Amino acid sequence: MRNLKVTVQYDGTAFVGWQRQDTGVSIQGLLEDALVPIEGAAVVVHGAGRTDAGVHALAQVATFGLHAAIDPATLTRALNGVLPPEVRVIAAEDVEDGFHARFSAVGKVYEYRFVNGPFISPFLHRYAWHVPGSLDLDAMREASTLIVGTHDFECFQGSGSPVATTVRTVRSIEWEKGDGFDTPTIVRLEGDGFLRHMVRNIVGTLVDIGAGRWPASGMTSILESRNRARAGRTAPARGLFLVRVLY
Amino acid sequence: MRNLKVTVQYDGTAFVGWQRQDTGVSIQGLLEDALVPIEGAAVVVHGAGRTDAGVHALAQVATFGLHAAIDPATLTRALNGVLPPEVRVIAAEDVEDGFHARFSAVGKVYEYRFVNGPFISPFLHRYAWHVPGSLDLDAMREASTLIVGTHDFECFQGSGSPVATTVRTVRSIEWEKGDGFDTPTIVRLEGDGFLRHMVRNIVGTLVDIGAGRWPASGMTSILESRNRARAGRTAPARGLFLVRVLY
Repeated sequence: MRNLKVTVQYDGTAFVGWQRQDTGVSIQGLLEDALVPIEGAAVVVHGAGRTDAGVHALAQVATFGLHAAIDPATLTRALNGVLPPEVRVIAAEDVEDGFHARFSAVGKVYEYRFVNGPFISPFLHRYAWHVPGSLDLDAMREASTLIVGTHDFECFQGSGSPVATTVRTVRSIEWEKGDGFDTPTIVRLEGDGFLRHMVRNIVGTLVDIGAGRWPASGMTSILESRNRARAGRTAPARGLFLVRVLY
Repeated sequence: MRNLKVTVQYDGTAFVGWQRQDTGVSIQGLLEDALVPIEGAAVVVHGAGRTDAGVHALAQVATFGLHAAIDPATLTRALNGVLPPEVRVIAAEDVEDGFHARFSAVGKVYEYRFVNGPFISPFLHRYAWHVPGSLDLDAMREASTLIVGTHDFECFQGSGSPVATTVRTVRSIEWEKGDGFDTPTIVRLEGDGFLRHMVRNIVGTLVDIGAGRWPASGMTSILESRNRARAGRTAPARGLFLVRVLY
């Protein structure tokens, strides 16, 4: 059996998330359904990460076994021919046995995009969080440096996702400042892995710090508390993008 | 009575167009409805141009009379507080009597955006036309230079919009080449005015030329025919943006 790797871009607005669910349309479900007529049988698709409802991806990665004799370029065309325009396969290739989208990943890059100003452009409101009040961006940057490194990120873990360990390594955080209307401020995080809601909870906490709820240095005690109730709000899904999966 | 000028940005995807209609939600209708509680009476809003269903605007301009004592910044906030996120008032100011969004305009700038490649990014498909086949962009540029100047543009006029004259002046056409997936190719047209569907019919004809249906030089005989049936298809609304109104 062949082992296929596909890279997928999607606008998550209308979906229940990556993972197949009974409650609505998922990206995994769309891909699996699109593969049935190609394979002539059910195919199980494994994603690198389970993006939540409303979260976007510039380059999600998925792997699956396939018996069908179809070259990767034709497979890409065939999938895009039946997928809705909100989901595009942007690359496909045969990979070695044992390569697994999730278990072979050694890191991920996420971006969170927000607009800080009185109004957000109609062309961004699906793809960024609108934060209207004044924010101290310097304090947010300073606080963000305190989570770089290896920490127990339990305080930033969403509920309902048991994991063996809540220790993760955030390798870097980069900032790009926006203009407050139609260019978002971008926070880019690279890490070895992220807990459920971790990026959204980090960004929500950074925005609370920017709004003056805590000083930048408060980030350390929040982190050390390992207590979700001590951290800030969860930033909305619409601003989150899975940018890259590292192998 | 005061004379107010507002600049409005909108994602036209979900609307029947600028003009109020019984068949669905219009931007004019949304603005007029939003002004009722402010004015305590009906307000008629005049737009610079009647963008069609699905057409977007980066900076549509509208004027209306107002008795209410409300400063422009507060008016902007009040309107954006009730308008859907797909429509934002980005500026408001008192202007002199006699200034009229439509009749005072001396020109307009439109952009048409398309992606020429096998696939279009999910983040662009609402905002650009996807043209998958191969296109001769040099031929399209060359053909586009033939419509710069003052011409009878009857061949590019959509039906159902009687006008006194179909003569218009296209002052300039600029091109920005995209990458074929997530950066659109942009055709930017400045003119003293545009007939209904004129930009979309010009772009549809340019794409037909790019696909080899006619040589670039064919643009001149199409223009001289004054016959809509001689020109090419109508490019879809999703790629068209009203960029600026000139006064």
